[in-house]
Amino acid sequence: MEENFQSALTEREGIEQPMQVNPNLTRHKRRVLSLDDYVEGILKGDRVILSRAITMIESANPEHFEMAQAIIERCLPHSGNSLRVGITGVPGVGKSTFIESFGTMLTGMGHKLAVLAIDPSSERTKGSILGDKTRMEALSVDPHAFIRPSPSGSTLGGVARKTRESIILCEAAGFDVILVETVGVGQSETVVKSMVDFFLLLMLAGAGDELQGIKRGIMEMADGLVINKADGDNKAKAVGAKAQYRAALKLFPKNESQWDVPVEVCSALEGYSIDKVWKMILQYEALTKANGYFEKNRTEQHVNIFYNWINFTLQNDFYNNEEKATEIERLLPLIREKRISPYMAASKVIRNE
Amino acid sequence: MEENFQSALTEREGIEQPMQVNPNLTRHKRRVLSLDDYVEGILKGDRVILSRAITMIESANPEHFEMAQAIIERCLPHSGNSLRVGITGVPGVGKSTFIESFGTMLTGMGHKLAVLAIDPSSERTKGSILGDKTRMEALSVDPHAFIRPSPSGSTLGGVARKTRESIILCEAAGFDVILVETVGVGQSETVVKSMVDFFLLLMLAGAGDELQGIKRGIMEMADGLVINKADGDNKAKAVGAKAQYRAALKLFPKNESQWDVPVEVCSALEGYSIDKVWKMILQYEALTKANGYFEKNRTEQHVNIFYNWINFTLQNDFYNNEEKATEIERLLPLIREKRISPYMAASKVIRNE
Repeated sequence: MEENFQSALTEREGIEQPMQVNPNLTRHKRRVLSLDDYVEGILKGDRVILSRAITMIESANPEHFEMAQAIIERCLPHSGNSLRVGITGVPGVGKSTFIESFGTMLTGMGHKLAVLAIDPSSERTKGSILGDKTRMEALSVDPHAFIRPSPSGSTLGGVARKTRESIILCEAAGFDVILVETVGVGQSETVVKSMVDFFLLLMLAGAGDELQGIKRGIMEMADGLVINKADGDNKAKAVGAKAQYRAALKLFPKNESQWDVPVEVCSALEGYSIDKVWKMILQYEALTKANGYFEKNRTEQHVNIFYNWINFTLQNDFYNNEEKATEIERLLPLIREKRISPYMAASKVIRNE
Repeated sequence: MEENFQSALTEREGIEQPMQVNPNLTRHKRRVLSLDDYVEGILKGDRVILSRAITMIESANPEHFEMAQAIIERCLPHSGNSLRVGITGVPGVGKSTFIESFGTMLTGMGHKLAVLAIDPSSERTKGSILGDKTRMEALSVDPHAFIRPSPSGSTLGGVARKTRESIILCEAAGFDVILVETVGVGQSETVVKSMVDFFLLLMLAGAGDELQGIKRGIMEMADGLVINKADGDNKAKAVGAKAQYRAALKLFPKNESQWDVPVEVCSALEGYSIDKVWKMILQYEALTKANGYFEKNRTEQHVNIFYNWINFTLQNDFYNNEEKATEIERLLPLIREKRISPYMAASKVIRNE
């Protein structure tokens, strides 16, 4: 029992932590830190303290919440100096291998890389994308990489908030590339898109059945498409798919960023063309920093978070009200059977009629 | 002054009304109707009474609101027996000509057609899509067509509600094809998509600059693409574009409806292939009624309206609160300058800190 608790704690501290076996060490690590301790530790790039601060963000304890907010406010002026890259793709596209290969290349170039995740399903499946260290062997022990599994939570809004706040702390700690991964459950792509500078869609060659898993609308959200697993017999197929996607993308209107969405092929397994993906992202950064879109997008993201969080809170308070929930359950069948107009039903719930 | 008022009234009664010049007739028309008068009139298919009921829906007067809600509740069990078709396309695509030609064909086949619109900009521009009778000369005097300009309103949610409620009354009045048109300002396509069975995107040939006006994401929303103005020199270009779009659409995942989104070319001006568009819609109806998606989609739409209207009302009440509005104005620059986290700012506004 105690051991389970300890290992759960260790996991929450960030999976990059070696297992704590010495109880003295454990005690030392768990000493209560002051706000100044946290902020100074983060700004120094102390990964253990960063990890503990993120645990505060993820905690459901109201005391932790207050502390987390104070840390964030102090770190906020030191945040923003990174490239935030979102990554999505259907299961089987080779996301872990890609991040392992891409991330190792980046740290090799001198970057400090934080890998975060949005996976609202992780609680249910226990299959958090980044939870399994073994899938990113090199990166998980890389001293310049910081990997954090998806926070748990019952609402996507809450999970997103935790990840957004973690980004602030990671940036304050000096990480200059932030990868945010998602498996694309529900609305999670939209959420990731709303917190990154560049949104990368990993795909597979063979524009047929394999693509059925990609949700409608995702392709139009992407700032770059990368066809992975271009190795062996697949390589020719990937190159063919690239041409098809290029043609399809030409039919879409341009983004406000004025960026022409490129398509690349790569093999994360063989390390083939992984560098081109990074070059693509840097080109995007150069273009959008020059034309002002980069900053504009970030500012808009901030303003949107503000409004979204107001709306989220209003709704959360409303739907968590037991009386309202009961009334909604009573009305739903009547709405489905067209015995009451949905507008009338909504008014009833709001006005407690 | 009096005359202006009268003509404004006439316009609100529905543009299919001939100008009232005889004051006795006008008085007769304006007599106060009881709830039963309204409901019986609508169920009999009386277009004048239908028009007046929709005016009630569109009115800002609280008394009218109560009456409108009562009418809707009574009509609700008689609604639903229509095909609801949404139509969008950039300005210049020939939407009015298309609706004129398509609508006249439908009434010629014995259908009763109602044409409604969602145009949140109509108030500002005074250029309501359907406001100008001259653009649909034949349809506006067709006894089997009922044309209603876009309701005005300051919020898209409010405008959408009025159109959705008008659909219920039109169906109760026996209209079996409802066209809902939009010019695609802001989020209006999403709103139209959420109230129709089939969403048609009109396009132009020449997959280049002309398409830039189509917003990202719209193409993935469409249940059918129609390339209009396939006449004269344009015809070959339209056929070429059709092939391109077919190829592009194949790269998209299928809708839950299992429908393969078709691409047609037509010329509304010459009446060429307008019948194919109707055939396309009927095929969709047959498939989705057979596989259950048609009803499922409508039920989901109802449930979504219910939740959306709750959320809309919560937000509307919140943002219309003067104190909150002042506080938001004060905080926005701080958020933009990254001097406060958007989450913290949102909490401040909600908790009145």
